[in-house]
Amino acid sequence: MNVIQMTRTECLESLCSAGFGRLACAFDNQPYIVPMYFVVEGDAIYSFALPGQKVQWMRHNPRVCLETDSVKNGSDWTSVVVFGRFDELCDTPESMQERARAHELLQRRPMWWEPGAVVSAKNADQKRSHGPIFFRILIDSLSGFRGVPGIEAK
Amino acid sequence: MNVIQMTRTECLESLCSAGFGRLACAFDNQPYIVPMYFVVEGDAIYSFALPGQKVQWMRHNPRVCLETDSVKNGSDWTSVVVFGRFDELCDTPESMQERARAHELLQRRPMWWEPGAVVSAKNADQKRSHGPIFFRILIDSLSGFRGVPGIEAK
Repeated sequence: MNVIQMTRTECLESLCSAGFGRLACAFDNQPYIVPMYFVVEGDAIYSFALPGQKVQWMRHNPRVCLETDSVKNGSDWTSVVVFGRFDELCDTPESMQERARAHELLQRRPMWWEPGAVVSAKNADQKRSHGPIFFRILIDSLSGFRGVPGIEAK
Repeated sequence: MNVIQMTRTECLESLCSAGFGRLACAFDNQPYIVPMYFVVEGDAIYSFALPGQKVQWMRHNPRVCLETDSVKNGSDWTSVVVFGRFDELCDTPESMQERARAHELLQRRPMWWEPGAVVSAKNADQKRSHGPIFFRILIDSLSGFRGVPGIEAK
């Protein structure tokens, strides 16, 4: 297997194509990962969530990491990592345009609302009293690698 | 869709069955995610990596998060999250027994060495000069949720 570094364009194409990955946030240097659907536009990644630990942590510390991968086997895979900043699109006049754009982009996904709208039976009532949080991740940097089978690293 | 909280036993079974997930570490409150193969035994998760950013960060801050998921669609999925601590199994007499155990467990996986042994053509020589880092994640807590289609949350 050889491992090839992907170009920025390839990384963005891979992110757009995936539309699903894992988001990590951190509080007091404790990382936390959640699976997430998203839509990429320009240098931003749009998604949404219901209020909870993830949102609380990202409000406190906007530094996040998003990873997507496609693993056929141990020698045939791609992995893209984004370092970025959480940017909440609040329900305010200032953010109205971006929030509407996020909603529009996310609605294009079939079943777009379900992963972010997860509620457990235990705290459904509590969460239902709050609407979804729309946000974007502003991309600071991204990198990606592709494993290619059958070629030995030089 | 309803979302059901998994028991500890179900979480451990799901982790064992997956054997693959995403590991997040954090440095200066910047999280970083990498895909990772692993083996679970008792309250520990065994894996290995070549020297690099992930290992540097975990040596500096042992707090990590491991997530595995199985997503059929937006309403049929499981996700398990582990909070734990990185524990390097050094090549020293004190760690020899645990290190040998990690090696033995990991060898049972087909292709076990490839994901952790990733080298890019660019820095292959540099990385080849160092052996793999064996480590375990000591589980502090774990939780899991399962999305079940066709049942409305009460």
